[in-house]
Amino acid sequence: MAINRTPTPLIDAPRGLAGVVVADTEIGDVRGREGFYHYRQYSAVELARTRGFEDVWHLLVHGALPDARRSAAFAAETAALRRIPDEVRRALPAIAAASRLSGPLAGLRTALSLLGAAQGLRPVYDIDADRRRADTVGICAVAPTLLAALYRLGQGLDPVEPREELSHAANFLYMLTGSQPDPRRARAVEQYLISTIDHGFNASTFTARVIASTGADMAACLTGAVGALSGPLHGGAPSRALDTLDAIGTPDRIDPWIRERVFAGDRIMGFGHAVYRTEDPRSRLLKDIALSFGGSRVDFAVEVEHRVEAILAELKPGRELHTNVEFYAGIVMELCGLPREMFTPTFAAARIVGWSANILEQAADAKIIRPVARYVGPEPQVAVPTVG
Amino acid sequence: MAINRTPTPLIDAPRGLAGVVVADTEIGDVRGREGFYHYRQYSAVELARTRGFEDVWHLLVHGALPDARRSAAFAAETAALRRIPDEVRRALPAIAAASRLSGPLAGLRTALSLLGAAQGLRPVYDIDADRRRADTVGICAVAPTLLAALYRLGQGLDPVEPREELSHAANFLYMLTGSQPDPRRARAVEQYLISTIDHGFNASTFTARVIASTGADMAACLTGAVGALSGPLHGGAPSRALDTLDAIGTPDRIDPWIRERVFAGDRIMGFGHAVYRTEDPRSRLLKDIALSFGGSRVDFAVEVEHRVEAILAELKPGRELHTNVEFYAGIVMELCGLPREMFTPTFAAARIVGWSANILEQAADAKIIRPVARYVGPEPQVAVPTVG
Repeated sequence: MAINRTPTPLIDAPRGLAGVVVADTEIGDVRGREGFYHYRQYSAVELARTRGFEDVWHLLVHGALPDARRSAAFAAETAALRRIPDEVRRALPAIAAASRLSGPLAGLRTALSLLGAAQGLRPVYDIDADRRRADTVGICAVAPTLLAALYRLGQGLDPVEPREELSHAANFLYMLTGSQPDPRRARAVEQYLISTIDHGFNASTFTARVIASTGADMAACLTGAVGALSGPLHGGAPSRALDTLDAIGTPDRIDPWIRERVFAGDRIMGFGHAVYRTEDPRSRLLKDIALSFGGSRVDFAVEVEHRVEAILAELKPGRELHTNVEFYAGIVMELCGLPREMFTPTFAAARIVGWSANILEQAADAKIIRPVARYVGPEPQVAVPTVG
Repeated sequence: MAINRTPTPLIDAPRGLAGVVVADTEIGDVRGREGFYHYRQYSAVELARTRGFEDVWHLLVHGALPDARRSAAFAAETAALRRIPDEVRRALPAIAAASRLSGPLAGLRTALSLLGAAQGLRPVYDIDADRRRADTVGICAVAPTLLAALYRLGQGLDPVEPREELSHAANFLYMLTGSQPDPRRARAVEQYLISTIDHGFNASTFTARVIASTGADMAACLTGAVGALSGPLHGGAPSRALDTLDAIGTPDRIDPWIRERVFAGDRIMGFGHAVYRTEDPRSRLLKDIALSFGGSRVDFAVEVEHRVEAILAELKPGRELHTNVEFYAGIVMELCGLPREMFTPTFAAARIVGWSANILEQAADAKIIRPVARYVGPEPQVAVPTVG
């Protein structure tokens, strides 16, 4: 809190601060016109195609891809951090029961808050960069365990203990299903997780950075980010695209269904993106993964994609509209056996690594993010009317 | 999510968005040069001097002071909402135990998150203004009960059930202590609570508005705001000023202690404010309340205040430095029997009403708050090195 600061003049900005630069970042960026996004200096899609989740996690929070020795060490370090502390574990049945109406994402929000409290996390401005990194790695490592436990408790099942010998992604699938995952499915989930760790400066990331800028602890930042992720305008609910496929039902109904939507001016879930002018690079990756599984569901999805593009080319020429990340992400998660209610929580389990990298970057800046509001109400008065 | 939006040009802004207008507001403002702040069109200090908490709460969330009939109705409405839902209550012992290291504010963060999940709150953009208001009034009504229960559980005591016939403030004191509060103390706490409901566009308020702007539910917004409030740069920890009094100890040590601090260039907790050039109007109100109690502790505080001002006038002439809200807030809460670890949580129990009013205003705007970051890292490449 500065003392005797000169009052700052007000600066008008576009509504919602659109386009206003709030931070310099080295974490990554999205190039909408090129259909390209990257984590640090690497193509995110290429990272998903060639690396494991832990390597990319390391890239995000340590700033560099690990070499082979360091890769193994980081994998072992994070695998050892998957267990839920006892005092948090004891609260999970009550959290799962109370979150019955709101689902696992609200449960994760509560559980992360509790985890941070149990760990007695300190404000990010009171600790050094190594301690901050340790705080976030600890939380990111246990987040999938919390999610899987909350999901299973919600289903009336016992939580499954994490296994250290499995990769981060394979262990998540294992804890959800209770059985050793098929390696192809585990790898598909891993690639999905890698591809959604970060994506430019989105609303939940901004929330995490605002809270971090006050110096609050890592759990306070991440709890707020999960809350922002739950907002409908944040965008991104991979189950919606499956709902579209379900609504269409059969191949013969594709054309009339799409034409009806286009004529009504409705949005078609799974298509279109705010930033990408070309194909969403995540969609391409996830489509390739889906095609590698094959099957009638995948064929149907591909047919829907083609018909949407063809009908839009006919009815709205010049309007480029491609599948976004939701479309094939939903297909891939379904192929991997994830229940629909876990799609967005699974997204959160990946994005928490991106949030963490952003919090670390923000905490190093140590400057509060605090714009102003302009009072536009009636001229204030000192006198207060008595109760009449 | 807009489709085919033209990319927004980047706009450079001051660091931390200082002075950048993010919203128009009718909720209130701070006039630093005049030493004046207001809620809607009324002086906040005059509201605290003349009204009850529930009336000011009504002013904030309904936009107008209630008449006598409406005042009684709103008091009855909110009093009936104080009980903790059973499924949240069942989780409180586990939350209190797990929050042992972090205290009641982290406990409140978790409990609010759980409460919102248990109520199955819907996104603020999916409900109308009345439903939003009902969501927030319900949460604000039960927040003091959650805090008192978490505090008592942390002390190994049973929570005390709320009583509907007591005012919001008196009931809070009653639930904390377990005994019928002295009316003068209850009124002092009430005036403190009123005076801290809102104070311009602070960091926790901004956090609540950012999360609300995604359309997330009321509990997601408030959970994030509590997180931001816990950040050291948010400012405001009324117990710190008492720590200063304790460190000085006795009247004869006042002068040497202060001179030593001033020579060392240290900050003196409880003095100075980022915005007020004059006396902090909250400090004046709280000092009057403290003086109405009297006693040696109050005399000592007043003497410290006078000596700090005199020594600064001598050593740093021209530097205006007055007590801020922390100084006499700490004294007043101590006089009312509040334990020090409950000072900031008590502040949160008041500020939650201000956050709520801001969330309601933001939700009516329905525009996401999302600035951007500028990528300044190495030029990205598609190729990813193989593990070496």
